[in-house]
Amino acid sequence: MIIAKVIGNIWATRKDEKLNGFKFLVVKQCNTQTDNQFVAADMIGAGIGDTVLITKGSSARNSLENTNIPIDAVIVGIIDSLEVDEGLLK
Amino acid sequence: MIIAKVIGNIWATRKDEKLNGFKFLVVKQCNTQTDNQFVAADMIGAGIGDTVLITKGSSARNSLENTNIPIDAVIVGIIDSLEVDEGLLK
Amino acid sequence: MIIAKVIGNIWATRKDEKLNGFKFLVVKQCNTQTDNQFVAADMIGAGIGDTVLITKGSSARNSLENTNIPIDAVIVGIIDSLEVDEGLLK
Amino acid sequence: MIIAKVIGNIWATRKDEKLNGFKFLVVKQCNTQTDNQFVAADMIGAGIGDTVLITKGSSARNSLENTNIPIDAVIVGIIDSLEVDEGLLK
Amino acid sequence: MIIAKVIGNIWATRKDEKLNGFKFLVVKQCNTQTDNQFVAADMIGAGIGDTVLITKGSSARNSLENTNIPIDAVIVGIIDSLEVDEGLLK
Repeated sequence: MIIAKVIGNIWATRKDEKLNGFKFLVVKQCNTQTDNQFVAADMIGAGIGDTVLITKGSSARNSLENTNIPIDAVIVGIIDSLEVDEGLLK
Repeated sequence: MIIAKVIGNIWATRKDEKLNGFKFLVVKQCNTQTDNQFVAADMIGAGIGDTVLITKGSSARNSLENTNIPIDAVIVGIIDSLEVDEGLLK
Repeated sequence: MIIAKVIGNIWATRKDEKLNGFKFLVVKQCNTQTDNQFVAADMIGAGIGDTVLITKGSSARNSLENTNIPIDAVIVGIIDSLEVDEGLLK
Repeated sequence: MIIAKVIGNIWATRKDEKLNGFKFLVVKQCNTQTDNQFVAADMIGAGIGDTVLITKGSSARNSLENTNIPIDAVIVGIIDSLEVDEGLLK
Repeated sequence: MIIAKVIGNIWATRKDEKLNGFKFLVVKQCNTQTDNQFVAADMIGAGIGDTVLITKGSSARNSLENTNIPIDAVIVGIIDSLEVDEGLLK
């Protein structure tokens, strides 16, 4: 899974009907040199500024009641705390 | 999902029969340093210059009536507006 | 899907039996800064120098009669023409 | 599969119920120029500082008793030793 | 599929039982600027120094007798020869 920051909202009126009712948030992956921004469906009630846990690919759809939805990234958790041993980053 | 700009059209007469009837557009991912251009099937009626929402991988096929098609990227929405907190981009 | 150029051929006598009978071509992704070369199964009769459309991942196997083959990239079309609005590339 | 170093822990109280009971660790891919940190579910009892083997994507869920969980990366082994022919790295 | 060089061996005593009996090799992708090393299950009898063909993702599991194994990369062939038109690399 990916650690990301919720950085914004997105609206799309003309979209696949199966996406109706879902809330989509713009997120930016943390701890990576390449600027990786993408969109994830929010199932947890996350908001802008939250650090979140995101599942991607086919596994993401297991967080949805109906897995036949064209969604490939889902916010599955809001991260309370993160503890990293800086010594191991070199 | 990925935010991308529709930048062009593509034509391929000699192709897998299962792809007949689909419209394919050339898209370029937004908000990323690496130049990421690829092709997506358009199910929404997007056009050149539109900013679109794209689902990739096996999840993309859930936007198709028949999921047994060799398509791995589908335009699932045309983005009306996008609001990003610039402060969170650093 | 990915736009790529067919750049070469590959031969492997010792391989998974399920791959017997397939033709494999070396391809190089177009329009990308990173040098992305990989191998795709050719179902269309493409040749060296052709610009082709490639489907990757589990979706690729939908182009095969038997989807239980260990293939993750398939050439699904030979591109006749490609029209990109250069203005949108910035 | 990916070779990675376990570098930290992560806690998320508000998360998808299906993730309850799983232990999540922050890992950093070894032997790669890009700084690739992500989160994996630990099924083996790994700890900070361990070098581990990680399976990603839909295959990862085959390490779980219930494969309908929104998890896309799983620690499937703790690496005892790794022997690489430096001459082949050029 | 990916062309890679077998560069080493890896041992993991504490691992998912489903991985027992499999041989894992460390491989390095050829023809790419980014240093992409990862681990693949060997089903063909490859050895250090061999240039091999690797299938990744869910498709890789089609090379296994039992597809419910947490493996996401499999060596499916040993490459005899590779012919690339250097003129097409620019």
